[in-house]
Amino acid sequence: MKIYHECLPCHLRTAVNSVMTMTEDESIISEVVEKCMQTASRFRSYDSLLEIYYDIQKVVKDAFPGMDPFSELKQNFNKLCMDSFDEYIKKINDSSDRFETALKLCLAGNSIDVMQGIKMNHDVLIKAIENALKQPLNKKVMEKLKSALQKSSNILFIGDNAGEIVFDRIFIDYINSEFNKAGHITYAVRGSAALNDVTIKDALMVGMDKSAKVITTGIDMPAAYLPYCSKEFNEAYDAADCIISKGQGNLEALLEENKNIFFLLKIKCNVIAKILDHKYKVDEVVIEAKTAS
Amino acid sequence: MKIYHECLPCHLRTAVNSVMTMTEDESIISEVVEKCMQTASRFRSYDSLLEIYYDIQKVVKDAFPGMDPFSELKQNFNKLCMDSFDEYIKKINDSSDRFETALKLCLAGNSIDVMQGIKMNHDVLIKAIENALKQPLNKKVMEKLKSALQKSSNILFIGDNAGEIVFDRIFIDYINSEFNKAGHITYAVRGSAALNDVTIKDALMVGMDKSAKVITTGIDMPAAYLPYCSKEFNEAYDAADCIISKGQGNLEALLEENKNIFFLLKIKCNVIAKILDHKYKVDEVVIEAKTAS
Repeated sequence: MKIYHECLPCHLRTAVNSVMTMTEDESIISEVVEKCMQTASRFRSYDSLLEIYYDIQKVVKDAFPGMDPFSELKQNFNKLCMDSFDEYIKKINDSSDRFETALKLCLAGNSIDVMQGIKMNHDVLIKAIENALKQPLNKKVMEKLKSALQKSSNILFIGDNAGEIVFDRIFIDYINSEFNKAGHITYAVRGSAALNDVTIKDALMVGMDKSAKVITTGIDMPAAYLPYCSKEFNEAYDAADCIISKGQGNLEALLEENKNIFFLLKIKCNVIAKILDHKYKVDEVVIEAKTAS
Repeated sequence: MKIYHECLPCHLRTAVNSVMTMTEDESIISEVVEKCMQTASRFRSYDSLLEIYYDIQKVVKDAFPGMDPFSELKQNFNKLCMDSFDEYIKKINDSSDRFETALKLCLAGNSIDVMQGIKMNHDVLIKAIENALKQPLNKKVMEKLKSALQKSSNILFIGDNAGEIVFDRIFIDYINSEFNKAGHITYAVRGSAALNDVTIKDALMVGMDKSAKVITTGIDMPAAYLPYCSKEFNEAYDAADCIISKGQGNLEALLEENKNIFFLLKIKCNVIAKILDHKYKVDEVVIEAKTAS
C-alpha cells in the first residue's frame, strides 16, 4: 500500500494514546513520543505505511517490554460479547435468511471498535448490532461469498479485534454446520499484543479453538502484513482457496495481493474510503470481494 | 501553556490537510510533510505548544508563499452569516433577555467551525444557532461579563474564525448601543492568513470597521500569542480593562496571563477540557472568566 500522508498523524495519535495508557510519567511520555515522531518523520525512506506503523509501535513496545495496555479492555469486551452468545445464535436461527444474518452479525463485530473511543456496554452493543443487521449489503458479493465458502476446502479467516472475535466464531460455527466445513477452517490471530486486536489468549477465551484451527500471524502488528508474517502463517495463506479478512488493517495489508479474498469491515477513515474508490462512505459496514487473476 | 503530547498529532493533521488543500503534487506534499514532521519531532526543544504550531505552519507557508488555502471558504462563510444579519438582530430584539441572546449568538459563532469538517449551509447554520441558544450558560459569569462591559472604557475583543466574526459584530453593536460604548471597543484580527481565522479582509467584508476599531495581532497565527504579537497589539492588550477572547487558540495563548479576560468558546478537544479542569465536556459552548490578581 502506498504511503498516504494523512495516515501519519493518525498513527502518531495511536502511539501517543498508547504511551499515555502505559504511564503518567511526563518525562517518559515525552521521550517515547519524541522517538515515535522521529521515526514517523523518516517516512520517505519506507516502502509501506504498515512498515512505518510497525516501527512507530516498536518504539512504544521497546519502552514498555511485555506490557499490553489494552489487555483488560479486551477481556471485558470479549466477556460482554460472550454473555449474549446464545441470543445471537437464536437471532440467526429465527431469521428468514440465516446466512445473511450470520454474516451481518460477523460484520457488526467490526463496527464496534472500542479503539474508536466508543464506551461499550450491553445496550450500546445491542444497538450497534441492530443497526448493522438493518444495513443492506451488496447481494451479489454476498452470494459470491456463500458460493466460495461452499466450494472451498481451505478457508483462512484473519481476525481483527477482541469482542468482534465472538461474532467471527458464531459465523464460523454457522459455516461449519451449514456447509459441513468442520476441520477446513483456520482462524488467524495476531502474534502478540497489537492495540485491541485478538491474540491466542482471546481465541482461547471465546472458545475459537473449538470451532477452527487457530494459528497466529507471528507478528505483533494489527494487520497480516505478509513480508513480516511467520512461515506458518504464510503457508496457511498460500494453501487457502478462500480468505476472509476482517477490518481495515488486514485490508491495507492484503488489498494488492493476488488471491480470492473477501474483505469484511467498517470503513473507519477517509483513506480507506479513497482506497476503495469512494464506493462507500466512512462509517459504512461493507463486504468487498477480490478474485485472484 | 505546557506541551501536551496529544496536540502534536493534531497539529500535524492540520498541516497535512493544509498542504493537501494547496497542491495535488505527491512529491511536494511529501517533502513539506516530512519537514513538518521533523519540526514536530523537535518538540522538546520548545517552551510552548504555540511555538511548535507556528513553526510547523511556517514550513507550509514557506512552501506556498502568499497562498491562503481557506480564502474562498472564509468568504463563503462570511457571506452565509451576513445573509441573515437582520434576522439575528430581530432574534435579539424579540428576546426576553437581550444581553443573554446577543452573547449566546456570539458564542454560537464559535460553535460553527468549518475547520472541524462541518459542511455549512443556511439550514445547518440556523440549526447550530438554535442549539447554541438553547444551551444554558453560567449565570454568574454572564452577569460578571455584563457588569465588566458596562464599567470598562477600553474593551479588547480578540476574534477567531471567519463567519463567526458576523456574530461578534452583532454582539459588539449590541454593547455599543446598550452600554454606550461606541469608540471604546477594539477588535483584533490575525496579522495574515492562519487557517480559517479572520484577517483584515474578513473584518472589512462584514463591516466590523463600522462597529469597532480594527487592529491586527501582527502575526499569522490562529492565537494571540503575546511574545510573537506586534507592538501595536500588545499596547492595545495592556491598555484594555476588559478582554473578550474567542475560541480555543486565544485561550491557549492567554489562559495564564494576569488580566481580566472572558473566554468565549466551544470546547473542541480533550486537551482544552483538561486545561479547564474537566469542568466542561467536549462540544460544550462555554463562557469562562479570569480576573487579574
